[in-house]
Amino acid sequence: MAENGAKRIRLGMVGGGTGAFIGYVHRIAARLDGDYDLVAGALSSRPEVALESGKNLGLAEDRIYTSYEEMAKAEAARPDGIEAVSIVTPNHMHYGPAKAFLEAGIHVICDKPITATLEDARKLTEIKPKNGAKFLLTHNYTGYPLIRQARELVASGALGKIRVIQVEYPQDWLTEATGDDNKQAAWRTDPARSGAGGCIGDIGTHAYNLARFVTNLKTEAVSADLTAFVPGRQLDDNVHIMLRFEGGAKGMLWASQVAVGCENGLQLRVYGDKGGIEWRQDNPNYMWFTEFGKPKQLLTRGGSISVPPAASMNVRIPSGHPEGYLEAFATIYSQFAAVIRGDGAEFESLLPSMADGVEGMQFIVASVQSSQNDSKWTKLSDV
Amino acid sequence: MAENGAKRIRLGMVGGGTGAFIGYVHRIAARLDGDYDLVAGALSSRPEVALESGKNLGLAEDRIYTSYEEMAKAEAARPDGIEAVSIVTPNHMHYGPAKAFLEAGIHVICDKPITATLEDARKLTEIKPKNGAKFLLTHNYTGYPLIRQARELVASGALGKIRVIQVEYPQDWLTEATGDDNKQAAWRTDPARSGAGGCIGDIGTHAYNLARFVTNLKTEAVSADLTAFVPGRQLDDNVHIMLRFEGGAKGMLWASQVAVGCENGLQLRVYGDKGGIEWRQDNPNYMWFTEFGKPKQLLTRGGSISVPPAASMNVRIPSGHPEGYLEAFATIYSQFAAVIRGDGAEFESLLPSMADGVEGMQFIVASVQSSQNDSKWTKLSDV
Amino acid sequence: MAENGAKRIRLGMVGGGTGAFIGYVHRIAARLDGDYDLVAGALSSRPEVALESGKNLGLAEDRIYTSYEEMAKAEAARPDGIEAVSIVTPNHMHYGPAKAFLEAGIHVICDKPITATLEDARKLTEIKPKNGAKFLLTHNYTGYPLIRQARELVASGALGKIRVIQVEYPQDWLTEATGDDNKQAAWRTDPARSGAGGCIGDIGTHAYNLARFVTNLKTEAVSADLTAFVPGRQLDDNVHIMLRFEGGAKGMLWASQVAVGCENGLQLRVYGDKGGIEWRQDNPNYMWFTEFGKPKQLLTRGGSISVPPAASMNVRIPSGHPEGYLEAFATIYSQFAAVIRGDGAEFESLLPSMADGVEGMQFIVASVQSSQNDSKWTKLSDV
Amino acid sequence: MAENGAKRIRLGMVGGGTGAFIGYVHRIAARLDGDYDLVAGALSSRPEVALESGKNLGLAEDRIYTSYEEMAKAEAARPDGIEAVSIVTPNHMHYGPAKAFLEAGIHVICDKPITATLEDARKLTEIKPKNGAKFLLTHNYTGYPLIRQARELVASGALGKIRVIQVEYPQDWLTEATGDDNKQAAWRTDPARSGAGGCIGDIGTHAYNLARFVTNLKTEAVSADLTAFVPGRQLDDNVHIMLRFEGGAKGMLWASQVAVGCENGLQLRVYGDKGGIEWRQDNPNYMWFTEFGKPKQLLTRGGSISVPPAASMNVRIPSGHPEGYLEAFATIYSQFAAVIRGDGAEFESLLPSMADGVEGMQFIVASVQSSQNDSKWTKLSDV
Repeated sequence: MAENGAKRIRLGMVGGGTGAFIGYVHRIAARLDGDYDLVAGALSSRPEVALESGKNLGLAEDRIYTSYEEMAKAEAARPDGIEAVSIVTPNHMHYGPAKAFLEAGIHVICDKPITATLEDARKLTEIKPKNGAKFLLTHNYTGYPLIRQARELVASGALGKIRVIQVEYPQDWLTEATGDDNKQAAWRTDPARSGAGGCIGDIGTHAYNLARFVTNLKTEAVSADLTAFVPGRQLDDNVHIMLRFEGGAKGMLWASQVAVGCENGLQLRVYGDKGGIEWRQDNPNYMWFTEFGKPKQLLTRGGSISVPPAASMNVRIPSGHPEGYLEAFATIYSQFAAVIRGDGAEFESLLPSMADGVEGMQFIVASVQSSQNDSKWTKLSDV
Repeated sequence: MAENGAKRIRLGMVGGGTGAFIGYVHRIAARLDGDYDLVAGALSSRPEVALESGKNLGLAEDRIYTSYEEMAKAEAARPDGIEAVSIVTPNHMHYGPAKAFLEAGIHVICDKPITATLEDARKLTEIKPKNGAKFLLTHNYTGYPLIRQARELVASGALGKIRVIQVEYPQDWLTEATGDDNKQAAWRTDPARSGAGGCIGDIGTHAYNLARFVTNLKTEAVSADLTAFVPGRQLDDNVHIMLRFEGGAKGMLWASQVAVGCENGLQLRVYGDKGGIEWRQDNPNYMWFTEFGKPKQLLTRGGSISVPPAASMNVRIPSGHPEGYLEAFATIYSQFAAVIRGDGAEFESLLPSMADGVEGMQFIVASVQSSQNDSKWTKLSDV
Repeated sequence: MAENGAKRIRLGMVGGGTGAFIGYVHRIAARLDGDYDLVAGALSSRPEVALESGKNLGLAEDRIYTSYEEMAKAEAARPDGIEAVSIVTPNHMHYGPAKAFLEAGIHVICDKPITATLEDARKLTEIKPKNGAKFLLTHNYTGYPLIRQARELVASGALGKIRVIQVEYPQDWLTEATGDDNKQAAWRTDPARSGAGGCIGDIGTHAYNLARFVTNLKTEAVSADLTAFVPGRQLDDNVHIMLRFEGGAKGMLWASQVAVGCENGLQLRVYGDKGGIEWRQDNPNYMWFTEFGKPKQLLTRGGSISVPPAASMNVRIPSGHPEGYLEAFATIYSQFAAVIRGDGAEFESLLPSMADGVEGMQFIVASVQSSQNDSKWTKLSDV
Repeated sequence: MAENGAKRIRLGMVGGGTGAFIGYVHRIAARLDGDYDLVAGALSSRPEVALESGKNLGLAEDRIYTSYEEMAKAEAARPDGIEAVSIVTPNHMHYGPAKAFLEAGIHVICDKPITATLEDARKLTEIKPKNGAKFLLTHNYTGYPLIRQARELVASGALGKIRVIQVEYPQDWLTEATGDDNKQAAWRTDPARSGAGGCIGDIGTHAYNLARFVTNLKTEAVSADLTAFVPGRQLDDNVHIMLRFEGGAKGMLWASQVAVGCENGLQLRVYGDKGGIEWRQDNPNYMWFTEFGKPKQLLTRGGSISVPPAASMNVRIPSGHPEGYLEAFATIYSQFAAVIRGDGAEFESLLPSMADGVEGMQFIVASVQSSQNDSKWTKLSDV
């Protein structure tokens, strides 16, 4: 996308040392469209890991840090210091770095959920970023071209008044108990590092955010039944939630990490009084669109469509050639780069924000409370 | 199936006059395997319709009735009288005929839901059938070969302990308000003829029954949010329910008649701690079966499988040649014929019974109550 | 379909004794719509099998024959004799019975391919049927509702001028050598009983007929490469053919009985200069229809469509409820019943005829010759 | 992939100015894994386009060239000169740059087909690269993880002896005549720029190469029927080919640019006497694998599998998260980088080579000759 003569943005990273999953993804996303150069990092709090990881990424030794505070200070002081930083640590380690970099005038790209607690999320909103430093929350699924298209379709009225929203995100990788040797699983099932939500925080928030992004409907309340099926697990690994939206739409959200046979089955279905759409992440270049009383249409990413395509879709290659998860992630990065450069006004309202992050935490907290109160309907505005 | 020298069972029908949908389906189901001969009918309460419909079906004029009471009496008195009767009237007209024929010693095949009210359903269980006349409730989806296979797989332990059950049945045919000219819609949206449930009674019970049939898990309680989206509609057209099963399994049930783009999207997914299965009615000859940590397997109706196939699957043609809705329906009919003849012991526990019908009504009533009580968890045993 | 007061047609059967596959299918097809009563049969040439099979089917003993000649004579003489007969013997046993019954004034329903040799097929056309007895060739796939729809779409010009036709029918059941104990395989791989074609006669003709039925384009010539992959097999088990049609369309036909993982993967794809369609038998209730430059549409059997549906589709149940192989077969039977009764004029041109059978044999012979001549283009009109 | 401390390779590009499709793809592929830095280019022969395109890509002005000869000379002379170059011009402009850079000791990454003529391809093999400069042909589909897996499965004997290979690549974008304003279409349909093959050169070679890569079977001969359906078109837009492989396997190849409704429907199916595989590019993260007599298994990219995964698959993200076309392309780039650096021995035999390019041209020429000779079987070794 950035092949427009713009300079690459100097990027740093907090977390994401060797062996980490999401840091690697962020780096590919940053590289793919040529908008960023990774030049600094506090990739691990363990010095040897930080050093080795940094070298592997080609960082200069003096820009390999072991503390994000130090990194924020040092980089802010350099004339060639980083302009943006990616925070890819476990949830409970989001708030600190975010604060440090924003206050240092460095743009922040933060993995989701925004923090481990709603308190932290709210405190985050009170930070006064220096020099208008901006914040991006990587709800990466919103970067899928057809998800953008879906949002446009809803906004255009092609679906009519929305009635029913079914969203789900089943996985199976936590079907059995995992030891601490499984780094990905360990922190995600640990309340101290993840917060009060397990599955709901890890993937439930993605599903929730996707439904919200596409429909633009505010959630009124949730009725939740959260379960930890695996013996000994402290956090939920299966999430059943009923949703009520402002204006009367109803929904269901299912997220699970124990649904054997499901890999990353994120799926969104939205039905209005005129039309419906259906989309699955595991084959994301296709979306069903049905106008009531007409045959189902299979929309393809960048392919023929009767309604105007979304300007922000960022389609790189012809329809029929599949793009995937990394491209969607890269679009978020790339469009945030445009925002940073000051020529991304059209993307600003589309990119997941701090407010989305806070709402995601409200969703988690309201759901956990509802589940503890025998699934009592709980308003997001009450938590 | 009946090509074993057995005599055809003489069958009558109540309801199902010209233009009716489900009566036509029952007749095909009765014919397909050659187990029944339709010889009498009270196909309509309107004499001309009854007569014309009967003639179209080749019934002798003296066996075309306009009243089921009269029919029960007359047929019971004939030496060549009907041995079984199919009741295919709207829900509120199930109890009367069922009682009349059972007390006349005539086996009853009854469409679902069993009655319009739980009271009627319970009264039905108090009837004393003459000569051991039997009762079949046509939860036809239980006749699908792969649904039988699924039940066997669960029973065999191949899925381990069941944790999560997701079942849904979306349609879109009631997306808009319908006039009284739409015969199918008219009675289904009328509380006087359908009972307290709209969508939940019409298709929600099918979804519920399917989950119960496959998993054999008792339901403990439901938390429901029922909605009538179409202005002026008196009964629910969208059903959101969370389920709790004995032993700790959890589930979700979604049924809708306003999900634009869905025709008859009945889908069942069951996940245990060892494996998972996924099945859809719109392509019913295939079922996903995953053992944790192994690739997904696509089981085909009657095709290769590593676990012993269900004896009761009644596969008629080689795998790859599709069977469908009518064959599944016919299997229920055909296996009930075996039960009637006294050589169907193996099928008896599989065929939907009066008890299943009562439970279906409990499910409806508990769900309606829960929905009226702000989705409070409601035990089936409390209604 | 026949629920219109019409009398059932008295039907006999030649072949189809206990254990036979296709005879069973014909019987279900005959029963499903209520247009026929099976009352006589020469089900096997082995007297005990004939007798037992006949009893199993409820035939009166005096109408169980062991010779088709005898049966034709006896039934023609009875006042309640059969009006139609189904011939379901191996290919080399089609000609004899067809001749006997047609000359006895009895309508003939004959399995495909029409005969074992082109000579026999041509001799068949010279028979003078008594009393205008009619002939149906059961190319059953032409009975699928969406195949009828496809034919209408092509005829309507919705696809424009046809350019490319891709048709295939892969199976895998003959992947390994089969002993004579496999009754289905034994005669199909034996030139004496099947004729010069193995796979091409058994399923290649189905694929060929389907392409012809839908497009109505005459075949000009074939270039074929037939192979017997399994050591010791005398007839082809894999068929590769390029096709040229009058008017310039080109095609490819692949049929195989050694394609591991394929059950009955009959698939047809037709592309014109304005649109394209794609259909698969294993999920036959759906068909892709694309108008150039617009999104793909998923047509459903009996569902919404922008062009007028085919009158002859014979849709029994609502879209979304699957119909299958047996219903398509039954439609052929049922519409032939209408033709027999004299009220099926609209179906006459749609039902596979003796001419289709002869063309099918030309296709086989031309392909075998081409394959023997190093795939030289061979005209159907030259054989 | 390159996050191992290795230095980025300095890359140049010939062709690929603003508006070009495949140059853009190459650039993303080069960036994605962080193995290359684009630092020089002769992006267009038109000076203004070259300049503007180069600036858009952030090239220094003194490294923006308008002639590849000049670029080869200048870059070879610089201490920080490019180490590799991507050639993304139309086919007839491959040979010249390839020669210039190889002889300058600069590694060449060349788009396919390798040249416009077989002569040029053969001349290319006679070039003496300076300093062991290497050559990569971007048959990018070979970079898909599951295609690597497929190749391993075949090599492992899991499919047994290969019998049947069905490969196809239908598109529809040339369904109608295109004006010269369509840059992509213009040169592809022009013999002067594309060579003797249209569709066969553009996508037929991809399909051919894919079949060869996965099965490792040598092609013996082809029987082809090439057609230009669109009036006035000079090169084929539809390709029908029958294939014979050494050892007795048979195949079919269909490529089309007029198949309405097909976007980039590359599909490969391979059947042996023990197993079969099926893969489609439009949903490339899944592959069917069937062992004869067992249920079909759905292999997922990087997911569970019973046979050892291919070491070279380069899976970046967990199964269920889709990777696509760009990632497959990037894998080719990234593994070639390893080869350049001298630590890619394991990849060398997997990366498409000059020999593959020559064979691809033989395939085109043999097919064109066969088509001109009434589809006579034509040996690749004879052209």
